[in-house]
Amino acid sequence: MAWKSIGIFDSGVGGLTVLREIMHSLPQEDTLYFGDTARVPYGTKSPETVTRYACEIATFLMKRDIKLLVVACNTASAVALPTLKRLLTIPVVGVIEPGARRAALITRSGRIGVIGTAGTIRSSAYTRAIKRLKPEAEVLTRACPLFVPLAEEGWTDNQVARLTAHIYLQELKESDVDTLVLGCTHYPLLKPLIADVMGPDVILVDSAEETARTVAAILADKGLLRPPAERGNHNFFVTDIPAGFVRIGNRFLGGKLGDVFQVSLEEEVGMV
Amino acid sequence: MAWKSIGIFDSGVGGLTVLREIMHSLPQEDTLYFGDTARVPYGTKSPETVTRYACEIATFLMKRDIKLLVVACNTASAVALPTLKRLLTIPVVGVIEPGARRAALITRSGRIGVIGTAGTIRSSAYTRAIKRLKPEAEVLTRACPLFVPLAEEGWTDNQVARLTAHIYLQELKESDVDTLVLGCTHYPLLKPLIADVMGPDVILVDSAEETARTVAAILADKGLLRPPAERGNHNFFVTDIPAGFVRIGNRFLGGKLGDVFQVSLEEEVGMV
Repeated sequence: MAWKSIGIFDSGVGGLTVLREIMHSLPQEDTLYFGDTARVPYGTKSPETVTRYACEIATFLMKRDIKLLVVACNTASAVALPTLKRLLTIPVVGVIEPGARRAALITRSGRIGVIGTAGTIRSSAYTRAIKRLKPEAEVLTRACPLFVPLAEEGWTDNQVARLTAHIYLQELKESDVDTLVLGCTHYPLLKPLIADVMGPDVILVDSAEETARTVAAILADKGLLRPPAERGNHNFFVTDIPAGFVRIGNRFLGGKLGDVFQVSLEEEVGMV
Repeated sequence: MAWKSIGIFDSGVGGLTVLREIMHSLPQEDTLYFGDTARVPYGTKSPETVTRYACEIATFLMKRDIKLLVVACNTASAVALPTLKRLLTIPVVGVIEPGARRAALITRSGRIGVIGTAGTIRSSAYTRAIKRLKPEAEVLTRACPLFVPLAEEGWTDNQVARLTAHIYLQELKESDVDTLVLGCTHYPLLKPLIADVMGPDVILVDSAEETARTVAAILADKGLLRPPAERGNHNFFVTDIPAGFVRIGNRFLGGKLGDVFQVSLEEEVGMV
């Protein structure tokens, strides 16, 4: 029997933190990662545009016969998930629902903080998802636009990163949240710093980790898990020249990035 | 006689610093500004992709009968200028040549620093342009990836910006450059800070200012300047929802941004 791959996509490198967690918890699985590096970032683009991009990428990955699709991009998860779930016959997992569920589960005070890009925070997707599960929760949000460029620059623990984290997180800290959702796939790289700034009383929810758990649970439930004795292969597709993706991606995956192929969605999906 | 407009384009809001200088030195001129906000940033994309985007935008603006095209984007200036000059019948002005010319002219020591995005620095476009004019010049470059998000966040003079500037500029300062080219259209917003960090002995070359001077000189030379008694109109086109462009753009233009129209290049240029 030929085992199918898990498809994962993001606008760029950020989703690699989700892939990392999937590789960690399901090392036997083959994965296909798609980074839309020619059109990154999605956070500043309209819901219509992002949904169109997400559908093009899903079409690309479906042609390669995946068994589950992970939308490892907060913006696309916030705006394109209903459309993707309607169009596809396989399970589709976003990054927002798993993080929101975990936060709603573990909070004691009911005061939950969420940080993300300007687009994710503006969409209120986490707030809605948390309140669906726990209507009495108080959700406090804060956009942290500099965290992504800091993570990509590799400045995850210097004075600039620390000062920036203090400015962004000050208000959430003073609001006494007991749980903080890292609502952006880049943020796990800043996790030690964020944990340090927030202090030991605040539990961080890592959306990447929670998403990987959800993927494992769904595959197990459907009997689609590959035998644990196997060793997964990992392929990467990007829409622009791979150099930048490889450089930054290796930082995300700890140097374990394999072959990266540049592809054209236009040709693939029949567009000009 | 109907006076034609000056066309200006950038991948996003950055080129507004160039527009601001043009409005300042040629207040009588009509302008059409195009920000490709659906596909920003260009700095991480391949030369082929950026050249294709630049040609699409030039086609859009040419249909609106412009008399001169300003490529107010360092990445596009670095990679697409020869193609645009070959295709278009009107003058095409990039942002690299004017800044390089000014730096080559005013340096006394011959040691010139250039800062820009990773893409601009990697392209060596400023170094080549300066050395064409002054082969004996020593050009020292440094990519400053966090300057753009800092400018867009409005953090142009806080401690994070100051610390970041110190880290990025330290080496150039120690190398005793006497001239520093701000090789990115966002950087004029950080000019007071950069000047402060570099000290009074280093002259900053603002590519936006120099580009506006070049535009004025070419239009004067060709007899295409509108009479100074007139008052120019300014229109803005963007490829994604205008909200973010308007918010950040007003910071760039000092609140003077007018109507912004969202357009689709795909329909316009006959693509799907």
